[in-house]
Amino acid sequence: MLTATELLYEGKAKKVYATTDPRVVIVDFKDDATAFNGEKKGQIAGKGEVNAAITTRLMTYLEAHGIPTHFREQLDARRLVVSHLQMVPLEVVVRNRVAGSLEKRLGLAEGTVLDEPVIELYYKNDALGDPLLNDDHIRVLQAASPAVVTQLKQQARDINRLLQNFFEERGLILVDFKLEFGIQEHALVLGDEISPDTCRLWDKETLQKMDKDRFRRDLGGVEDAYQEVLKRVMS
Amino acid sequence: MLTATELLYEGKAKKVYATTDPRVVIVDFKDDATAFNGEKKGQIAGKGEVNAAITTRLMTYLEAHGIPTHFREQLDARRLVVSHLQMVPLEVVVRNRVAGSLEKRLGLAEGTVLDEPVIELYYKNDALGDPLLNDDHIRVLQAASPAVVTQLKQQARDINRLLQNFFEERGLILVDFKLEFGIQEHALVLGDEISPDTCRLWDKETLQKMDKDRFRRDLGGVEDAYQEVLKRVMS
Repeated sequence: MLTATELLYEGKAKKVYATTDPRVVIVDFKDDATAFNGEKKGQIAGKGEVNAAITTRLMTYLEAHGIPTHFREQLDARRLVVSHLQMVPLEVVVRNRVAGSLEKRLGLAEGTVLDEPVIELYYKNDALGDPLLNDDHIRVLQAASPAVVTQLKQQARDINRLLQNFFEERGLILVDFKLEFGIQEHALVLGDEISPDTCRLWDKETLQKMDKDRFRRDLGGVEDAYQEVLKRVMS
Repeated sequence: MLTATELLYEGKAKKVYATTDPRVVIVDFKDDATAFNGEKKGQIAGKGEVNAAITTRLMTYLEAHGIPTHFREQLDARRLVVSHLQMVPLEVVVRNRVAGSLEKRLGLAEGTVLDEPVIELYYKNDALGDPLLNDDHIRVLQAASPAVVTQLKQQARDINRLLQNFFEERGLILVDFKLEFGIQEHALVLGDEISPDTCRLWDKETLQKMDKDRFRRDLGGVEDAYQEVLKRVMS
């Protein structure tokens, strides 16, 4: 039986524990929610369980379609067993429609459909406010080799196509999402989570927001939206 | 005799006039100085003349080394005759050392030498605060074609090598600088200015700042620094 030993890392929405097996760690999903680089804090009741279940379903789906992920098994309602990766310190954002920071950056209306997905790489660094990087910045920071950057972007595009189809069949538009990757035995592996915390999801008919933007913008109905996404993802 | 007709555009540091010849415009360099996207305003006595003279010298030098520029002739102390370009709405920043916004973005110390130059492309849009763009953003905005983006970056690297040598011989370190390009008969042509307003220049021995950072940061001796750069550029 796998047992959590020391707490390796506590993030805004998850705790990561070492285990008796050095090749795996346990991720514990919290109900805590933060936004705007930690300036806004709160709780979303049941979020830990919802995000653990959605991540399990989506990582399993991606694995079945040829994407290597860190997912191994769901331990209980809030905890997953995942491979221990050397994380790449980049957040890979994929966008199919304009929303959030892209709206502000480009001055385009929320919801504008992008003919091809936009990929953005952000430096995972809270103290610096997770700044946008270009390929030259990544080289200076040695955050990832040029080969890994190329691979990251390709993987992100492939995952986007798969997730767009998955959500489309369940009446949801995948507006944008954030991925994190790690290295395991010289191979690039998808890590972190995929959930309404890390995806913008809109109802296909009503365009209603079904994700963390309800929390960020105080739109109400946060828990209901997370439960509805869970229901559709599991269908 | 070429005559300025209507004012086409008034920027923070320059006015651009149409002329009786539709192929050329007249650029009038002002003493006005702004910083932080126009939040800080002031005057630097003699700056218009200094920047007109330095731009003339540097554009002539670049032309002599195979770089197409918009420069045609100096009309008088503050005014240049230049080709009328279709401007590309991007600011091309080339960096040889860490300073300014790169210091904040990457969390690296000012003055850190970059092994290879860093090139950044910013959207020339005051209302949006001239945001950093990656190649996907540029595609969405249709700010420049992928071929033009590649050419912009190559031209910027070539210009950097030439200017680094030029300043080095005159005891100045070219820390970073901003370029703007335009299209003329389907060819990419360097436009705008090259001056202590658009370059960070440090004295090679003392590392003293000899550019607009003296104004931005209230370091004093602004006019003297501009005059000293002029003297060295003309030597």
